[in-house]
Amino acid sequence: MLPAGFEDMGPQQAAALEGKRRELLDLFASWGYRQVIPPMLEHLEGLLTGSAIDLDLETWKVLDQASGRVLGFRSDMTPQMARIDVQMARGDEARRLSYAGTVLRARPDALGGSRAPFQVGAEMFGVASADADLEILSLMVESVQRCCPGTELVLDLGHVAISQCLAEACGLGQQDREELLRFLERKAWPDLRQLLQANAVPAQQAEAFRALSELHGDHEILDRARQRFASYPVILRALEELDFVWQVLAQRYPQLSIRADLAEMQGHRYHTGMLFALFSPQQGAAIARGGRYDGVGKAFGRYRPATGFSLDLRPLLRDLTEERNSPRVLAPGGSDPSLWQAIQDLRAQGYTVVQDLAGGAPAQPLPAGFDACLVVEGGRWTLAGREPEFPFSAS
Amino acid sequence: MLPAGFEDMGPQQAAALEGKRRELLDLFASWGYRQVIPPMLEHLEGLLTGSAIDLDLETWKVLDQASGRVLGFRSDMTPQMARIDVQMARGDEARRLSYAGTVLRARPDALGGSRAPFQVGAEMFGVASADADLEILSLMVESVQRCCPGTELVLDLGHVAISQCLAEACGLGQQDREELLRFLERKAWPDLRQLLQANAVPAQQAEAFRALSELHGDHEILDRARQRFASYPVILRALEELDFVWQVLAQRYPQLSIRADLAEMQGHRYHTGMLFALFSPQQGAAIARGGRYDGVGKAFGRYRPATGFSLDLRPLLRDLTEERNSPRVLAPGGSDPSLWQAIQDLRAQGYTVVQDLAGGAPAQPLPAGFDACLVVEGGRWTLAGREPEFPFSAS
Repeated sequence: MLPAGFEDMGPQQAAALEGKRRELLDLFASWGYRQVIPPMLEHLEGLLTGSAIDLDLETWKVLDQASGRVLGFRSDMTPQMARIDVQMARGDEARRLSYAGTVLRARPDALGGSRAPFQVGAEMFGVASADADLEILSLMVESVQRCCPGTELVLDLGHVAISQCLAEACGLGQQDREELLRFLERKAWPDLRQLLQANAVPAQQAEAFRALSELHGDHEILDRARQRFASYPVILRALEELDFVWQVLAQRYPQLSIRADLAEMQGHRYHTGMLFALFSPQQGAAIARGGRYDGVGKAFGRYRPATGFSLDLRPLLRDLTEERNSPRVLAPGGSDPSLWQAIQDLRAQGYTVVQDLAGGAPAQPLPAGFDACLVVEGGRWTLAGREPEFPFSAS
Repeated sequence: MLPAGFEDMGPQQAAALEGKRRELLDLFASWGYRQVIPPMLEHLEGLLTGSAIDLDLETWKVLDQASGRVLGFRSDMTPQMARIDVQMARGDEARRLSYAGTVLRARPDALGGSRAPFQVGAEMFGVASADADLEILSLMVESVQRCCPGTELVLDLGHVAISQCLAEACGLGQQDREELLRFLERKAWPDLRQLLQANAVPAQQAEAFRALSELHGDHEILDRARQRFASYPVILRALEELDFVWQVLAQRYPQLSIRADLAEMQGHRYHTGMLFALFSPQQGAAIARGGRYDGVGKAFGRYRPATGFSLDLRPLLRDLTEERNSPRVLAPGGSDPSLWQAIQDLRAQGYTVVQDLAGGAPAQPLPAGFDACLVVEGGRWTLAGREPEFPFSAS
């Protein structure tokens, strides 16, 4: 009945989403990240600016009756955050923003996934140092720990500057360099080798890519990379950043498995530095993903350092069960003022009270989903419950 | 920069929206209304079914690459609730649903209003009696009282059965009857008179409409209407329903001004019974609006009694100030484990802690927006604050 990739969330799923949504926004707030709410629809140019151009095919487009211009539905809230940061920015101050909302994807997912992810994320603007990446990474780990308590987590680290530096060093024309980067993004090593040969790239450079393709795994690969790329200051700086966040995160989150893939380039047209993704062994796709994307704000008038992460809450809800946090009371129908007062008093104490508008005395036994019913005893409204004993302590 | 009728919500407005959103959903839950989350996009037929056809011009449409069918963005969540109710319904059980989300309007508002209202509402299905309308009305009043505390509120009551009954009695053909109803909806009394004359409607019927046009005001108009329309059982039943909710609401909410307009017909193609709207003397447009709309579910396969209300949170946020509910602490930069532990402990206690990643000692005096800074004293991390004294009791 609904289009492919769209679905209703029934009461249980909606309660789980609402609970996690609140928990994450509150977590973000306690770290100083303030929620902003961008519009669902914007002028297409604003949504697809600069490095967000990859989103074009994913974006639903409509014609605005009011202006005759093409509008797009947001398919990612990160570019909107970059725009809002620039509009708020006065100098080079740090700004922490968070967001939670539905984004829409035009293309159906081959795997039957949602076309309406519920994106929740946090972004830090104005801080170029790895301290900002470390904070975002820590917040990402804490967020996923709250969403998937007890789940074993694996953090993948990467850094686009490494591949980019090696690509620069090949001395290719722009078109060839872009093709090289695309091959790198797809890890199409044979294609890449062929491209290097066809362009007569010196063996030393070609060999560097071969080495890069093997640099994924545990912390020790950072040392191997340092030795291998000792002559590239840009790469050494990237490795230093990775080493820094790695060591601090290992200390902060001893349960977390960390690994790096120095050839990782996903989203390289958008990202400018560290890349990170959190996986669980149970799920193929990353649970959360982020990275540094300095300069996206330029399209909106100001260069700003930027780093952030986001996750889609929808796929995480499958395993969540609704938390009943308030006892449910069935009250008889009727508009008697003393009944109304009793009902309102219970609600104010944290009870959920449902009036049985079909009329008559409450059903015996209590219908499923109720913990007690409201009855008159000795002229006063009181709760008559099943186990456990009443009154509950309202949460 | 944004299309007309769309805007960003900055941190203050977003915090106010989030706070009210939570408060209303929690209120609804305590009355037994369970949140459901319908999709932003549906097949157009589902959104514009039957009585929701008025929404056609308001609905943004897109072509679905996946199916070649036309989809619409929801411009009202009520028809979606009717669909979900039918999909959940097994018999004639009562069902209480609530929702909160953005709806989109294609047409720009002449008054420069939003094209992205934030609609929050509650609907009850399966109960045909005025008890259900009373519950929805009470919940509507409580909701608006929470959104606009201290605001004087005026409740307008109407009942589409009254005008419809008089229109039926004219014995017009379908086309003329529909025109008559449109004139009634617009309260175009001269046009209406002309139509009656042109169709040679007997003076008795024509006179009934004149009487109807004067039946608005205080409770006493119900008595006048009873006398005037004593020969119409349908109207007497409608008046009885209005009288019932009026008297109970007057007792429950003594501060509330109640008035009725028996000629009120807004949304008559959708509504089937009582109509209600809450106003404040400060605002021209209704703050909240609702009514009975039995049978909308038929389009989805099942006749279901239905009544509900909704409101747009956006215009109510103007007067809201953000509630600071957690003290803000500025911590120095750095990844020192003891500093991290102190920061995390404070966050767990309800503090908002922001690390100053620009480095160095926290600025003196404290920057605006902070209540304290984290400093080392005697080898331990402690809070150094301005008034009031620390530690705060975290809320």
